[in-house]
Amino acid sequence: ADAKAGRAVARAKCQVCHGIDGIAKMPVAPHLAGESDIYLQTQLKAFRTGKRENEMMSVVAKGLSDEDISNVAAWYASIELSVKVPE
Amino acid sequence: ADAKAGRAVARAKCQVCHGIDGIAKMPVAPHLAGESDIYLQTQLKAFRTGKRENEMMSVVAKGLSDEDISNVAAWYASIELSVKVPE
Repeated sequence: ADAKAGRAVARAKCQVCHGIDGIAKMPVAPHLAGESDIYLQTQLKAFRTGKRENEMMSVVAKGLSDEDISNVAAWYASIELSVKVPE
Repeated sequence: ADAKAGRAVARAKCQVCHGIDGIAKMPVAPHLAGESDIYLQTQLKAFRTGKRENEMMSVVAKGLSDEDISNVAAWYASIELSVKVPE
């Protein structure tokens, strides 16, 4: 998969809600930063087949090829995540 | 909602796959760290009603009360997230 090509897909189709950095720009959207490749691909394909439904994602996913899905998943999976847990 | 009580729910029912820190312990599970309260509650309730399906989560969610859902969502939402984006 080509994470750089995936960043272009993210810029065109994902950034408004998810950000290029994978930090959600609105509460209804999840963060994608650092999610695993398998999780991202599974969810995008589920939205594309209708196994998972969301009024926004069902439409967006229909416009993604297998290659787009593989590349955009590689992009978001390549983002490094760190957390600060409350005491 | 009570994030501390939510941490106890996480310890009992979520940590094996999602970690108490919300960083997934296996590729099939998503990170929960820093996800918004509304996203987490919406997904847990979808798993509980069957609107969203997953062999593991459909079972786990059936065992969560509204209070558990509200508290565990508050716990994971309280975790601070930072990212490092590749050049």
